[in-house]
Amino acid sequence: MTSSSQSAIVEHANDLVLIRRIPASAQTLFRCWTEPELIKQWFVPSPWTIAHVQLDLRAGGQSLIVMQDPEGNQHPNPGVYLEVIPNRRLVFTDAYTAGWLPAAKPFMTAIISFEPEGEQTLYTARARHWSAEARQQHLDMGFEQGWGICADQLQTLAARIA
Amino acid sequence: MTSSSQSAIVEHANDLVLIRRIPASAQTLFRCWTEPELIKQWFVPSPWTIAHVQLDLRAGGQSLIVMQDPEGNQHPNPGVYLEVIPNRRLVFTDAYTAGWLPAAKPFMTAIISFEPEGEQTLYTARARHWSAEARQQHLDMGFEQGWGICADQLQTLAARIA
Repeated sequence: MTSSSQSAIVEHANDLVLIRRIPASAQTLFRCWTEPELIKQWFVPSPWTIAHVQLDLRAGGQSLIVMQDPEGNQHPNPGVYLEVIPNRRLVFTDAYTAGWLPAAKPFMTAIISFEPEGEQTLYTARARHWSAEARQQHLDMGFEQGWGICADQLQTLAARIA
Repeated sequence: MTSSSQSAIVEHANDLVLIRRIPASAQTLFRCWTEPELIKQWFVPSPWTIAHVQLDLRAGGQSLIVMQDPEGNQHPNPGVYLEVIPNRRLVFTDAYTAGWLPAAKPFMTAIISFEPEGEQTLYTARARHWSAEARQQHLDMGFEQGWGICADQLQTLAARIA
């Protein structure tokens, strides 16, 4: 009845994917993704910052991350967790803003997986979109550079706290 | 980490709701919603039938119900469970077809709740849409009559198997 069983993730044409081997444990990377004080240290490319993080880490629980631009404007990013498998996988979407309240426009589902490989972890961050147009829009917004910089910051933080 | 905690459901403008007190236990109604051989006996208004039911009852698991019209044409209804709280609540959506594969167009989220009230159960079937247009489309498709007939059939079945 719970999210304890882990099914394989199938590729989809509307996916954008970042895959990286990181010299840190799956447990450490999962902490970086789920502890507010750690999220604040890597989740946006500098000079943006994270003003606020509130997480209800369960299927149906809200993930609210408020980003702040260099001018001090705040940009709330509400979403809902769909699947939480400790130290292995997180799935969340912006199709809901909290509980099961629908967002104005579903854009993507994020599937983050942490697969132990000896001393390292195969880290996969997958942004899956509801349309080819949304995927292209995400590319135009700078998916590759943005998620790449964040992965660098995640890797640095993981090395520091391990 | 699991769906064991149950949060309150907030009303939303894009909801269509059927509420009924049914003289059966929450456990019996939950069985009718989750056992394929029982689903086949109430889930569509006659003379339609259910040709096939396949359920993976966990957050992220697929719900596939294939309806059959009187001419023998089959109509697959794929969806994914978002929340499964035994004997209390089921949440599923057609925004995904299986796993976290996106559907062509997210239409609705169904929130089904079973609240024990003595010998009875307060049964709430909520169809929550991503837009006011989708809600109206569902009304035009005959939501009230269709879900009402199904609730009658559910109540009859629950009385028989209790």
